[in-house]
Amino acid sequence: MDEFLKLAIEEARKGLAEGGIPIGSVLVVDGQVRGQGHNRRVQKGSAILHAEMDCLEAAGRLTAKDYQRAVLYSTLSPCDMCSGTALLYKIPKIVIGENQTFQGPEEYVRSRGVQLEIVDSAECIELMREFIAQRPELWNEDIGV
Amino acid sequence: MDEFLKLAIEEARKGLAEGGIPIGSVLVVDGQVRGQGHNRRVQKGSAILHAEMDCLEAAGRLTAKDYQRAVLYSTLSPCDMCSGTALLYKIPKIVIGENQTFQGPEEYVRSRGVQLEIVDSAECIELMREFIAQRPELWNEDIGV
Repeated sequence: MDEFLKLAIEEARKGLAEGGIPIGSVLVVDGQVRGQGHNRRVQKGSAILHAEMDCLEAAGRLTAKDYQRAVLYSTLSPCDMCSGTALLYKIPKIVIGENQTFQGPEEYVRSRGVQLEIVDSAECIELMREFIAQRPELWNEDIGV
Repeated sequence: MDEFLKLAIEEARKGLAEGGIPIGSVLVVDGQVRGQGHNRRVQKGSAILHAEMDCLEAAGRLTAKDYQRAVLYSTLSPCDMCSGTALLYKIPKIVIGENQTFQGPEEYVRSRGVQLEIVDSAECIELMREFIAQRPELWNEDIGV
């Protein structure tokens, strides 16, 4: 498996170990990790720190040119918020661990010129399936349901 | 002028006084302010704290039902990230101070069922025009240019 997706899964597992929602994300520019993070709704009492947002915040204030040659990794299909953030910064490619347990606005994101690669990772699917079965109310909160 | 838009403008002016980008936001549920905030890219070294994000984070973890009867106020047309966040939480209405100096994906947001009210406030336009003229590089960073 792609080393960066592996790192995103490690982030997801960190989140789970902290009592959080197991979704992880990594931002890569020119083959280098510039940021990594995981969902911290529970840990920080946050309404906005989905994994991708936590990752981009950890990366700090990059230049437009950095974002425009970056690849964003996420263990799960990015929601409307995280997809919108990738669009704001014109991140050209997103690698998605899986989109079976949740699917964001992938068609719209593609229509805006972003390349999406769906890995369909059994490990990512399993992480989410177990979590959703155990904490459905927390998962619903995370996706605004 | 609507008292909540006034409060959002006060937030924008707070941000300006702190050396930041003058955009403010307020979240109202059932006529009550549940959160307010302003852009804190400069103040927090943040890549994600646009005014609307800062406001939603200040509001904390609300229920889906709260968001679904909320009105989000912003002094400026919400960008892809902030629009996406409103879509995630199914916020049904956004009141926008102005969309002359910047326009987010308003057509798409409307197509997803969100009501947008554009106030076209001279005060909001003036705040942004002055700021963009003085700090074009910071403004471009904020919108991923």
